[in-house]
Amino acid sequence: MKILRFIYKQQELWGVLEGKAVRVLKTAPFVNIEFSRQVIGFKQLKLLPPTVPQKIILVGLNYKNHAKELGMKTLKQPIIFLKPPTALIGHLDNIKYPLGVKQLDYEAELAIVIGKKAHNISEAKALKCVLGYTCLNDITARDIQKKDGQWTRAKSFDTFCPVGPWIETDISTDDLMISAYLNGKLKQHSSTAQLIFPIPYLISFISQVMTLLPGDIISTGTPPGVGNMKPGDIVEVSIDGIGTLKNQVK
Amino acid sequence: MKILRFIYKQQELWGVLEGKAVRVLKTAPFVNIEFSRQVIGFKQLKLLPPTVPQKIILVGLNYKNHAKELGMKTLKQPIIFLKPPTALIGHLDNIKYPLGVKQLDYEAELAIVIGKKAHNISEAKALKCVLGYTCLNDITARDIQKKDGQWTRAKSFDTFCPVGPWIETDISTDDLMISAYLNGKLKQHSSTAQLIFPIPYLISFISQVMTLLPGDIISTGTPPGVGNMKPGDIVEVSIDGIGTLKNQVK
Repeated sequence: MKILRFIYKQQELWGVLEGKAVRVLKTAPFVNIEFSRQVIGFKQLKLLPPTVPQKIILVGLNYKNHAKELGMKTLKQPIIFLKPPTALIGHLDNIKYPLGVKQLDYEAELAIVIGKKAHNISEAKALKCVLGYTCLNDITARDIQKKDGQWTRAKSFDTFCPVGPWIETDISTDDLMISAYLNGKLKQHSSTAQLIFPIPYLISFISQVMTLLPGDIISTGTPPGVGNMKPGDIVEVSIDGIGTLKNQVK
Repeated sequence: MKILRFIYKQQELWGVLEGKAVRVLKTAPFVNIEFSRQVIGFKQLKLLPPTVPQKIILVGLNYKNHAKELGMKTLKQPIIFLKPPTALIGHLDNIKYPLGVKQLDYEAELAIVIGKKAHNISEAKALKCVLGYTCLNDITARDIQKKDGQWTRAKSFDTFCPVGPWIETDISTDDLMISAYLNGKLKQHSSTAQLIFPIPYLISFISQVMTLLPGDIISTGTPPGVGNMKPGDIVEVSIDGIGTLKNQVK
């Protein structure tokens, strides 16, 4: 099932994509999926980020080769950081190039959307708190990241967290191909089978620190091939079985 | 004016403290302050964190002597990081000592509560978006902070962000004494006159990265004298003209 959040006639709604039609939901999809009678054509709506998270938690250096590419050691435990919800944008929204930033990078990632509250959850039970998966682009001002040492500012600018186009609920993430395209050229291409810390481990690990709430996002890290963008560039994050998240830098 | 958020008869309410009485507000205090007719005795209510932030933004190393104490250089620009809202607790709530943490530290801080949306605001206008000020304890698992390099995990555990007891709206922060007491003994004692980056600068700087929303917290960094706590310890953050935030480690 592909769960969407969108604007239609000035209303923010949730829906499920079925072919070219969207069946509208009565409420947010976290407690249960309840359809209204309304059906809208997919072309008539404007997509929003497909969740409203309290927290956006990202994992650094979770593909072996990407850590190598940045000259960093692989780690014994995940390194986590947060992006603020003000950084969220949806499919086809524009990434704003901030004044003064010298190097703006894309980072294609598979993101988990939490469906149920979870604290101190075991790896064995971790997938029970997942609603589904989506694409995320961890936009990073690389020059600021290097200067600050702490990653937060470099990754927290408004529009630095494109997410979407929707949440796919029925998918195995054991071996999904994830790709980034810059102006149509393939730049990142790897499988989630290469994750250093697998998804149940990440959820369990993070839930030992902070209580996960419905809507929260955990992004699983980026594969090798990150690179920079300039104004006008079009960047796409594509994950097999999920879809393609497309944004332009302005 | 001292603005409170509290639970009274299972209801979450906002109010204004006047002596030993609390005048209840009709709504959250961000748009305007509108009193209901209800008045409650201060002793009858349980305080909550005095704001509901989307973002909790903290500033590292903002007192010259604290940077020295940690063996870190003073900086040309502020280093910022985020705590998740799940870390929030109020006055008299307990700080949970996480399993496996070896060194749990207090860090007394003056926190700004944002009253109006602000993006790219100038230093000259920065104070116009402030609702008021409160006390914040930036609880930190120092061993994890050192191990991770990135500060997020060490500072993001549930209960690691005591805030309160209330928001003081009528105060000049130019030279406020800020103190931390551990089991009644003075441990931190400094003036906000010692801030490396003053409050209007911090607000302007952060608003150039992320849009600030009503309720958001910016914490201004901790003075020298940080130290560690064990279960049973009582920690207090006291700021002249605001009040005292008291919590116990469990």
